[in-house]
This record gives sequence, structure tokens and C-alpha cells, in this order.
Amino acid sequence: MDAAEFRKRGKEMVDYVADYLEKIEKRQVFPDVEPGYLRPLIADCAPQDPESFEDVFKDIEKIIMPGVTHWHSPYFFAYFPAASSFPALLADMLCGGIGCVGFSWAASPACTELETVMLDWLGKMVNLPEEFLAGKDGQGGGVIQGSASEATLIALLAARTKTIRQVQSEKPELTEAEIMGRLVAYASDQAHSSVERAALIGAVKIKSVPSDETFSVCGSALKKVLDEDKAAGLIPFFFCATLGTTSCCSFDKLLELGPICNKENIWMHIDAAYAGSAFICPEFRHLLNGVEFADSFNFNPHKWLLVNFDCSAMWVKKRSDLIGAFKLEPLYLQHHHQESGLVTDYRHWQIPLGRRFRSLKLWFVLRMYGVKGLQEHIHKHIRLSRQFEHLVLQDERFEICAEVVLGLICFRLKGSNELNEALLKSINDAKKIHLVPCHLREKFVLRFAICSRTVESTHIKFAWQHISQLATDLLKTWGQNHHQQ
Amino acid sequence: MDAAEFRKRGKEMVDYVADYLEKIEKRQVFPDVEPGYLRPLIADCAPQDPESFEDVFKDIEKIIMPGVTHWHSPYFFAYFPAASSFPALLADMLCGGIGCVGFSWAASPACTELETVMLDWLGKMVNLPEEFLAGKDGQGGGVIQGSASEATLIALLAARTKTIRQVQSEKPELTEAEIMGRLVAYASDQAHSSVERAALIGAVKIKSVPSDETFSVCGSALKKVLDEDKAAGLIPFFFCATLGTTSCCSFDKLLELGPICNKENIWMHIDAAYAGSAFICPEFRHLLNGVEFADSFNFNPHKWLLVNFDCSAMWVKKRSDLIGAFKLEPLYLQHHHQESGLVTDYRHWQIPLGRRFRSLKLWFVLRMYGVKGLQEHIHKHIRLSRQFEHLVLQDERFEICAEVVLGLICFRLKGSNELNEALLKSINDAKKIHLVPCHLREKFVLRFAICSRTVESTHIKFAWQHISQLATDLLKTWGQNHHQQ
Repeated sequence: MDAAEFRKRGKEMVDYVADYLEKIEKRQVFPDVEPGYLRPLIADCAPQDPESFEDVFKDIEKIIMPGVTHWHSPYFFAYFPAASSFPALLADMLCGGIGCVGFSWAASPACTELETVMLDWLGKMVNLPEEFLAGKDGQGGGVIQGSASEATLIALLAARTKTIRQVQSEKPELTEAEIMGRLVAYASDQAHSSVERAALIGAVKIKSVPSDETFSVCGSALKKVLDEDKAAGLIPFFFCATLGTTSCCSFDKLLELGPICNKENIWMHIDAAYAGSAFICPEFRHLLNGVEFADSFNFNPHKWLLVNFDCSAMWVKKRSDLIGAFKLEPLYLQHHHQESGLVTDYRHWQIPLGRRFRSLKLWFVLRMYGVKGLQEHIHKHIRLSRQFEHLVLQDERFEICAEVVLGLICFRLKGSNELNEALLKSINDAKKIHLVPCHLREKFVLRFAICSRTVESTHIKFAWQHISQLATDLLKTWGQNHHQQ
Repeated sequence: MDAAEFRKRGKEMVDYVADYLEKIEKRQVFPDVEPGYLRPLIADCAPQDPESFEDVFKDIEKIIMPGVTHWHSPYFFAYFPAASSFPALLADMLCGGIGCVGFSWAASPACTELETVMLDWLGKMVNLPEEFLAGKDGQGGGVIQGSASEATLIALLAARTKTIRQVQSEKPELTEAEIMGRLVAYASDQAHSSVERAALIGAVKIKSVPSDETFSVCGSALKKVLDEDKAAGLIPFFFCATLGTTSCCSFDKLLELGPICNKENIWMHIDAAYAGSAFICPEFRHLLNGVEFADSFNFNPHKWLLVNFDCSAMWVKKRSDLIGAFKLEPLYLQHHHQESGLVTDYRHWQIPLGRRFRSLKLWFVLRMYGVKGLQEHIHKHIRLSRQFEHLVLQDERFEICAEVVLGLICFRLKGSNELNEALLKSINDAKKIHLVPCHLREKFVLRFAICSRTVESTHIKFAWQHISQLATDLLKTWGQNHHQQ
């Protein structure tokens, strides 16, 4: 395929994508396929000779689309939103066209420098303390990671290295292995599984801190486990606070936790993967109060800020902490500018070496929506979330299981876990809308997340009527066949 | 921006990308900008109100392009190639449009299943042993990682977990920390820095195995360090073999190393990040002989197989080894299909949770080029590499520093490191072509990598004439000012 054919096919693909997104509402949100559906539809091996674009293109509807879960359908209420917007799609086309690999400043200066400035823009939008910004010669700064999981891992590894060095300087008799054996990381019992995974990768202990009745970790709960562990000779070094947990969007109490971490010399990382985007609205910024005590902060514009996946924004107060944990410098990656204070080699800030020009997406989205446009997007989702909460509250058969702060509603039928599992199954089997569940303590709970960019009040109303009807149908037969708890 | 405007702007962007790639030769391959160039060109913070697409679009040439290193210019000979092709760009547009996040089978079945089948296609193209393929119910299989660094890390972590469990079952008196303290990983002294980094992250020792005069690790060299370390009570658990090292594209001797690793119960991972694409050509497949002894194998179609970054292909013989190292399963990520043997939840195979629909790129490229078309691409690059080698060999002032096997030529002026550093500086300062250096033992060496999809014989000739002329100019003055070694 040459440039001339790409012009033609590229424009056809633009129309296909526009059609797909414009008419996505008409597609069934969750596919009908069973595991293993695709292999029989496809040849056993790659063709020897080239096939035409037409042949490949027609297989999209035939082979791919029947197996797609439509994350951007207004009937998709599962997980958390995956952002999508036209400006971000345009920027990604440009990113692919330029196709640079920005592991160092020299490998493509624009790729590195735009990222630094965009993370400053975004940091200012959520009113981060100045220490987190790169500015002209700051010690902090932001970076785009692929996912919040990576941000958590990077923060934990940086904290691990920093702590080992500190302990070794104070107690030179301890070996690195001995220190490692005593390190403990902490996170809420509501924290995302990626925190436990980061500790597993980093080969350090991790302990759950019990959350309170609002599913939040408060200062006294952390203090209690820290005191016990210190008394047992362990070395607490890392606490991952969550703002907006995955299960129910609860918020750890930063203003209590932060001072404890600072006093105990514990790295505080804040995982606000989903909720962070809301902090661009002044009325929600208070949820981030206490960030001034943190060492690192992360949220995902690719969840709720209309920047297509992947774009996970992470800031640190001291970039030297990240770089110190990783810096290895073979000659083929050195360049003569790198001693300058203005130069950032982002490969020292992340797990992979290579990196795409992802800041273009931020640049396009922030400029073409403007702060106000993005605030409107958040506001709309929160209005719809309130609408759904209101509908649930009006139906006495149901209960709300956690305070609705942003765009997630946790709800269930008053009754047994089995009843609610049956309700979820009937919802997802009908495939008119798509939800996923969670556990809150011993309760099986349905999560309703406002996801799509194009979801409107009518979709919420439809979803509720549908759920309500399925509940009615279920309850009719349930009473005859089951003991209700 | 609505769908109608996206149709218009998307088509303009297709033309911009087509123009960029068609006329890339006319752009200076390496930018003139100095560190910090971009910040003064951009506002201090995001705009409150939306800006138009035109305003953003015109800033691409004004602000971005002056700072881009043009990786796809036919005058770019630095690092290793970053793949780019029109079919891959089209597939990435579709990937962005669908915008699903494929962490589990249910999150988008097509995303998972196409990946499994495409990795089987690719595995067959390089004639991998059947054990590495997923097939209908195999124990192995492939996965797309973001980078070779991540593949190495994943393999090391899986090996670490597997070894700890084995040692614990044999010697229950040892704690996990004690075992960790004895684990040792190995790689060539020529291996990529990401191997050392993986060990640093995984908190295990790593030792360099000395390479021989061809910069390859042979069996006796590995055996020697293993015997010493075992005698000292250490537990060797992981060896990363490199096929096509970054410095000079040398190849570790798999057929000697593999049996040793198997006998010693050491996980052998093969990092063929660059070279792996060449194995689709029958005449280069012998370089992969010995892969049958490996536990995991990785190469980057995003380097040399015309699939845009990121697409790093990794295969394992036993998928349970990867999954066993990571599996954590909160309720919101469970789905009712997952107990079926046909279901793959790729989030257990990788560091991040989220993942894009990257297999579309492989599907488009493999079908629209066909195996023959991709073989032609490799053949062309190797022809050009031989051409450059021939030109160097005809000039008695220069020497070739390592055997030229694929598309990389390591060369230098016969003379001091200072002389060669000066030559590289004059080349890169002139900015007509772009190269990076490496060290081979104590020697400073220039690396000339055949990179661009569109590079032709005329560009190679031009590059050599240019280098040769700069050498002539340099040598004129050098004799007067420096002692030659």
C-alpha cells in the first residue's frame, strides 16, 4: 500500500469509525459469541501473498464486530469509563504518523517536551501544589504512564530504593536482603488489586488497612497497623491511598493519613485513577485536599477526561526519586544534551523503554474542549449519576450500598446475595445494558457506572426501567423457589 | 467536535500524515532545537474555552515538527528501526475507534481472541516449536506486550515465582526472603540494559556472562559462572539469551546454552527484539535454532516487521507459569466464562491491567503484505546493509567491528576513540543523517542501522559519501592537533 492508496483507505476508515461511533447505540452492547468463536473464522496461518484492503475491511464486520464489547455504547455501565473523543482520535492518527519512539530527549525532543508541559497544564487544572510541577526548573514533574497499575508499581519501586538507601546509611550492618525482608507496604482493604500486584512484583510485604463503614481508610486505622508492625521490627515504607475506589468510589482520608506518612517517613502515593478527572471541577477539588502530603499522585485521563486509552498521568515531587531507582545508561542511549537541567529522559520514569507520542492526545483534547468543556462532561455524568441514584431510592425493593459521590452507583435488591447474583445474570443475559458487580464486605453488589461520552438521561431512564422490570420478573418466581434472607 | 466534523478533520489528518511520510526525505532528520525550546511556544495553562481544530492543526508545523526526530526518514540510521506502514496506521485508527479495553476475555472477546490467533500466525511464520502456540487447547501461547523490556521483566518474575515455589517444596526450612537472597539471573555482558533493570525491579542478583570474541555467549562461559555460583550456595534461576544484541547484533549460542539451562532447571528467555523479524526468512531461521530449549521467546514486530509501535510479541511454553506469578481476581474482573479452557484473560500475562486492541495491526499487516511481502522488506534491508558494509570495506581508513549478520553495521576509523567520537559528532552535527554509537569492549564504535521502510540504495550511497567526506575533513586537521594511537 502506497501513500496514494492510504489517502483513499484512510478516509474510508475515518468514515467507518465515524459511522461506528454515531450508530453504536444500535449495536448490542455485549456480544453473543462463546469462547473460541474467532479461530474457526480465520485462516490457520498468515497468507503468503498480499490480500487486498477490501478483503480485510469486510472481515471487520464479519469477524471482529460480533465479538466486540462496545465500551462506548450509551448502554455500557460496566467497570469505569474508557475515554473516547474525536480530538483524541485525531491526535492518535498524528502520533502514529510521526511514529517516533521517545525514550530520551534526543530521540524526539517534541515528544518529551510536550509531555512535560501538558502534565503541567493538567496539574494546574486539578490545582496540584507547585512542587509537583516541572515548571522551568522544578524538582518535580509529570509523566504519562500506560496505566495506573504501572504508576503504582513505579512509585512503590522508587520508595523501596529510597528506603533501602536510607536504612543502609543509618544501619550499615543490615544487608539489602535483610532490609527488603522487613519492608511493608500498605493500602486500603478496598484498594485495587494492582497495589497487591505491585508489592508482589517488588517482592515486599503488603498489608491491608481496614476501611471504615464508609469504605474509607482513616488515620487511626493506619496508625494502628503501623504501630504494631514497627513494634515487630518491620519497616513501613509505602502507603497507597485511593481516591475513588474501584468497588464503590470511596475516598481515603488524606488529611489524616498524609501527616502520619510524612512523620513516619512513608512514601504516600495517591491512586485516583477514576476520580482524579473530577478534580478539574472546583466543587470536587476538596476531595484531593491532603495531596500536599503525598510523594506521588496519579489519575487516568483515559478514564474520564476524554483522552483515549492509554494516558495515565503521574506526578512526583522529586523526580530524582524515580530516576534514582532505575537509571542505567548504555552508550547508545546517551546524548550530549543530557547533562542539562532542562532535559528529561522519560525512560528513567517508567517500566518500558519505548514510548509513543501520547501527549498529543492531551494537547488536542485540552485545547479543543477547553477546561470548561471538560468540566461540562464531568458535570453531565454526575447529573446522570444523581438521576439513577434517585430512581433507585424511589424503589423500596432496592438499596444504595455506598455514598454516591461521582459517577458510580452501588445498589442491590434488599435480599440475599443469590438474589442479586440472579438479578445481575438476568441483566447481563438480556444484553440490553452491561454491568459488573463487586463485593462490599460480605455483600454482592451491582455497580452502575456512567461511562459513555454520549449517554443521556433517556438511556439512564431506559436502563432503570429495564432493571426494575427484570427485578419484578425475578421476584415473582424467586419467592416460590428460594428462602429469602 | 461531532462525528460530522470528525469526518472532515479526520480526512485532513489522513492527508497530513500521507504528506508527512511521502515528503519526509525533505525534512532535516534531526532537529535543531535546544532543550527547553517548546515551553515558551505554548501557553502557561490550558485554555478555558475551546479552541478550533484549525488553531491546533497549524501549531503542528509551528511547534511540534521543529522538535521531531524523524524516525522514518531514509536518512535515519540510529538505534534500531521503528516499524511503520500504512496498513498498520489504518488498523490503529480502527483500534482507537473501537476503543475497548481488553483486560479480560469478557471485556472484549474479539480483542483477546484475535491476539491469540495472530500470535499463532506469527509463531508459525518464524517456525516456533508447537509447544509455544496456543492452538485449540495448547498449554503455551503468545501475547502482545508493550516492549521487549516488559517481556523480559515478565519472564524473570514468572521464573522467580516458579523457582521460589520449587525450592520451598524441597527445602521448607527456607523462608521466601532467604530464597530471594540466593537467586541469581544471568545475561550476556552485551545484553540490553533492560535485563539488568528487570533484575533490579525483581530484587534479584544479576550477573554478566562474559561474551566471546564474537560478542556471543557460549555454553562454557555460562557453565563456568553457574558452577562458581552454585558452589557459593546461590540459586541460578534465569538466563536471558540475546539474539541480535543492541550494540552489534551478535547472537548467543542457544544450542550450547539451552541444554545447560534445561539441565540446571534455569528459565531460558530469549530476547530477539530486533533480530526476530528476520527469522521469517528461511535463510535466517537457523539463528533461532535452540529455541526449543527456551521457556519464553520475544521479538518486536514494532521494530522490523512493519507493525507500528507498540507490538512486542512474546510466547511462553507454559502459560500457567505466567499466570501463576500474578493472578489476583477481584469480583469486578471475574466473568462467568473464565473457567473454560478456551478463555484467556491477558491481564494475567502482563504488568498493566488495561490493553488496547493491538492485534488488529498484526492482522492488517500480515494480510496486506503477506509473508512474501514482509520477507521482501527484510531482504531489502539486508541488501542495503551488505551494500554499506561493502563501501566501508573498500575504504582502508575504516574497519568493520563485528560480523554483519542482519541490518546493522558497526564500524569505525582505524584510530583512537577520540577520533571516532569526533567523527560521530561531525556526522550528527551536520544533521544530514543520524547515527548513534556504542562501545564494543573498550572501543567507541559507530552503529549504522538500516531503519526506514523507504530507504533505498541511493540513500546508502549518499550516507557513505557524506561520512567519508567528513572523515577526510576530520583527518586533515586531526593529525596536526592530536597524537594518533
